Amino acid sequence: MLKDYRPEKPEDKAALSEEIDGLRSTLTGLQQTIRDKGIPILVLIEGWSAAGKGSLIKELISEIDPRFYKVFSAPLTPERDMRYPFLYPYATAIPENGQILFMDSGWMEDAVRKSLRRDISGSEYKRRVRQVNEFERQLRDGGYVILKLFLHIDRDEQFRRIMELRSNPDTEWRVTEDDLWQHRDYKRFREAYDDFMEATSSILPWHLLDGSRRKVAVRDALKLLVDLTKRALDNGRYCGEPFDENFPLLKMPLLRDVDLSPTIEDEDYKKKLRKLQNRLDELHNVIYRRKIPVILCYEGWDAAGKGGNIRRVAYPLDPRGFDVIPISAPEKHELHRHFLWRFWTRLPRSGHICIFDRTWYGRVMVERLEGFCSEKDWKRAYNEINEFERLLTDWGAVVLKFWIHIDKETQLARFTDRQNTPEKAWKITDEDWRNREKWDLYEEAVDEMLQKTSTENAPWIIIESNDKKYARIRTLEIIIQALEKAIEERGARDLL
Amino acid sequence: MLKDYRPEKPEDKAALSEEIDGLRSTLTGLQQTIRDKGIPILVLIEGWSAAGKGSLIKELISEIDPRFYKVFSAPLTPERDMRYPFLYPYATAIPENGQILFMDSGWMEDAVRKSLRRDISGSEYKRRVRQVNEFERQLRDGGYVILKLFLHIDRDEQFRRIMELRSNPDTEWRVTEDDLWQHRDYKRFREAYDDFMEATSSILPWHLLDGSRRKVAVRDALKLLVDLTKRALDNGRYCGEPFDENFPLLKMPLLRDVDLSPTIEDEDYKKKLRKLQNRLDELHNVIYRRKIPVILCYEGWDAAGKGGNIRRVAYPLDPRGFDVIPISAPEKHELHRHFLWRFWTRLPRSGHICIFDRTWYGRVMVERLEGFCSEKDWKRAYNEINEFERLLTDWGAVVLKFWIHIDKETQLARFTDRQNTPEKAWKITDEDWRNREKWDLYEEAVDEMLQKTSTENAPWIIIESNDKKYARIRTLEIIIQALEKAIEERGARDLL
Repeated sequence: MLKDYRPEKPEDKAALSEEIDGLRSTLTGLQQTIRDKGIPILVLIEGWSAAGKGSLIKELISEIDPRFYKVFSAPLTPERDMRYPFLYPYATAIPENGQILFMDSGWMEDAVRKSLRRDISGSEYKRRVRQVNEFERQLRDGGYVILKLFLHIDRDEQFRRIMELRSNPDTEWRVTEDDLWQHRDYKRFREAYDDFMEATSSILPWHLLDGSRRKVAVRDALKLLVDLTKRALDNGRYCGEPFDENFPLLKMPLLRDVDLSPTIEDEDYKKKLRKLQNRLDELHNVIYRRKIPVILCYEGWDAAGKGGNIRRVAYPLDPRGFDVIPISAPEKHELHRHFLWRFWTRLPRSGHICIFDRTWYGRVMVERLEGFCSEKDWKRAYNEINEFERLLTDWGAVVLKFWIHIDKETQLARFTDRQNTPEKAWKITDEDWRNREKWDLYEEAVDEMLQKTSTENAPWIIIESNDKKYARIRTLEIIIQALEKAIEERGARDLL
Repeated sequence: MLKDYRPEKPEDKAALSEEIDGLRSTLTGLQQTIRDKGIPILVLIEGWSAAGKGSLIKELISEIDPRFYKVFSAPLTPERDMRYPFLYPYATAIPENGQILFMDSGWMEDAVRKSLRRDISGSEYKRRVRQVNEFERQLRDGGYVILKLFLHIDRDEQFRRIMELRSNPDTEWRVTEDDLWQHRDYKRFREAYDDFMEATSSILPWHLLDGSRRKVAVRDALKLLVDLTKRALDNGRYCGEPFDENFPLLKMPLLRDVDLSPTIEDEDYKKKLRKLQNRLDELHNVIYRRKIPVILCYEGWDAAGKGGNIRRVAYPLDPRGFDVIPISAPEKHELHRHFLWRFWTRLPRSGHICIFDRTWYGRVMVERLEGFCSEKDWKRAYNEINEFERLLTDWGAVVLKFWIHIDKETQLARFTDRQNTPEKAWKITDEDWRNREKWDLYEEAVDEMLQKTSTENAPWIIIESNDKKYARIRTLEIIIQALEKAIEERGARDLL
């Protein structure tokens, strides 16, 4: 890649300008079709400090209507990493359908710089490379068009640029310590960039641009963007094929084999509840201080008792340190992005607890059964979700997924009770009854989900909830056990 | 207030518990009606360190379904203020219709602590008090129910609480340097809290809670919340009356008196454009470095040339330092909040330039004419907008508002051209033609808007755009002039 790069010979300036104008107006002509067909486009622009990434973006956007594009740049701070997963700033910034996002440095600079600075270990770096490949594939499979550019200049050219910036008091401040460090260590950076590009080009290719000749770089970038866009518009929105990555899965029972008879005596319940809640309160302090993120996922049958269960778990927690996120049908701006986006944006900060009342598993349940996504989409989702959850636990999160389980008769009794009790009537809707009619289809989907997504790092736990009180105690016990284990394993090691 | 506070005599514990249970189930019973009637409720809980704000919130939410409430707490950091206006974290966190938000410390602690720490000057403190009053009134007038609580403990009780926290290794870290400082300076804090409460109780009252008796505090808070909610549900959503605050207004001409004849020669245009763009590029560096936020607002007739004008302004800017925000009809989650919310959330960080392609003035134009809000709403908006913009310029922002003006014939010519040119056809919709039919009504609304909201700090500038090139040059000149003036006035003083 960079080490073999030879710039091409100079070109006719006037011809170049003409070519650029032509490409620009082609792109302008395409913008409405991009919007109409709902194709999201992400242009990642990486490259050397002072190579002119900003100017390049400026040239790329100059003729595009502001309604069609956004520019994103996130400062690289070491703290950010601690509070959120590595890909968080990028995953939350992805464009919506029909939009072009220009990303001024992204996951490559982030991973490479932190690795060279030894902010992260070698194995963490490798994990990040894997996460990047998974992330790019997921976006591509979800219909995103992604163009990855690297703006290249050699060391002498970088020196000239730095000197130029420093010679003007208004631009002097732009040359940071980090830039000078990169210049000094040019060779090490080059190797690191090469490594990264090699490790991340099997799914989506990298394109080198000649940063020492601005117009050539603009022309080449525009040409790549126009070609890629045209291809996407011709072929229609891409939808990736499902495939298995062979995650090590935990063996789960089928729902119909679950014994729902366990109950608890009222006295026993009260005593245990208090004791467990006190313990959870203590542990919350510890995980807050130790910055361990906790993600609790609730799924289950309608009227299984999710709400009451969540309230018993939430009660002992300090309200400043947790959030309950009720998930219902996505809104328009959520539908217009990758299906995991609305969960990325709701991730807890490290040390916080996030309780999802319904989750990303809607993809393989309601969206599957109601036809809200294609068959390929939901079949691909098992793997995508496993990757997403591995990313979360690699980050350091405790991830527990509860299937709150009841049988069909219990549901009927609770539905009827809700209908007959005025204060509870709002909890029951026609949709609940309609879903109930599809019980068998749902059961099939849930069984498949439990089989395909229960991993050691993010296990499914079936909670027997015919007796709601029993269910609450079980859930609390499991959460406490998991937190104690996480705290112990963490030892003296803090996050990262 | 605090200095006169005498706790009431002890109460019967069992009776208290019963009362609390009763209030809790009343509240639970109301939650669905709150949702159905779309009433947003904000409960602000201020108070002494270690007074038990967290525990109080815990008790208040314990029986509420997680779908109906959220808890918000923002860490107080000095940097935050520099990057955004003082009220930014709170204004962006307001609840949506039908939701209860519990705010764990908010604008009071923020203002008081920073004032005592001398992070802000006395006059800045006074400005913030005024901003708080305006903010609270705007929310109330927009139908928000606001409950302001102060959890009070005396100095001895605070000492006991601090000792208790420090005696447990799991809670020791909760006692911060700031808490100890508050305890040492208890008297100064008490005076400051008293001052703040006095200065901010004319619009919405403060309620003191006895933090030394947890159950009493819970009961009183629940009672206040239930009473306030019931009253709101009985009376329906409140809608404030319009009133004038007598902002010093600039005299604006009527649109029909604007001379639209100015034009520019092509040669002259090219030369000036290049020169002005180069100058803007230089200035962008300076404002970025000096952390001056810039907010450019574009309004104007359909086909007046806003888009092209914005592109010429944006072209020389570093894409990392500006955003173009196209504003169209609000989405559901935006409609469910105060009308200024979606602009609050899009404010630029200091040093950044934000170009709004249409703005909050939609309230007094399209929303007024299409009946998307009530007459009181849009009549009140002139004052609310003036307050909002004063807040922005008080923060240090340069705010310029451009009305891109053309006459009716020019619009017709451009519409027709768009319709007859395939690449431009997407720009013209049936709605544009419908709006055109209402030209006279819009002209009346725009004239009223220009008269009522052109302030010295945030002036309206009418840009003659029958000749688009002339308009671009004028806009650039005015922006450059304003930035130069801001940089000069700022002198050596940095933001804040």
